[in-house]
Amino acid sequence: MGRVVVEVMPKPEILDPQGKAVAGALPRLGFGQFTSVRQGKRFELEVEGDVTPEVLEAAAQAAATVLSNPVIEDVVRVADIEADAAATVTSTGTLA
Amino acid sequence: MGRVVVEVMPKPEILDPQGKAVAGALPRLGFGQFTSVRQGKRFELEVEGDVTPEVLEAAAQAAATVLSNPVIEDVVRVADIEADAAATVTSTGTLA
Repeated sequence: MGRVVVEVMPKPEILDPQGKAVAGALPRLGFGQFTSVRQGKRFELEVEGDVTPEVLEAAAQAAATVLSNPVIEDVVRVADIEADAAATVTSTGTLA
Repeated sequence: MGRVVVEVMPKPEILDPQGKAVAGALPRLGFGQFTSVRQGKRFELEVEGDVTPEVLEAAAQAAATVLSNPVIEDVVRVADIEADAAATVTSTGTLA
């Protein structure tokens, strides 16, 4: 049983009200060192067998079409949860 | 200017309706290989200078107190975005 991590962030030019709210709250709670916050999503997809390159490819496709809105979001990472930094997806959506 | 990544996931025993909805949609859209999906959050915290151990410590504290609800969520990762897998926080919240 393998797991794939997919991470999605709002594009830099897109306003992120959730992140702004967190960024506003942190200094009030004693965390003044953080100047800006962006909030995105993290998915864990489970598969029956091992995480093969085909599974990663399918996950990257699902990430681009179902898990993210490509107009406002970037897929920043698609990787086997075991071999964390194995396959990183660049912000253009191509496997690096 | 450094950035810290904080990742938060719903605890395994907690029902995750967002993840369930995605898991239900994926097979209908041709991604039948994924048997289960969990959805969590990914934060990027920006700091003025470099990401020092002190900054990571503060981020881990912010993660545990502001960015997650420890009753229903686990902080699964607190790391410098550059040195990705540098400092991983275990599900008990201690720096590994």
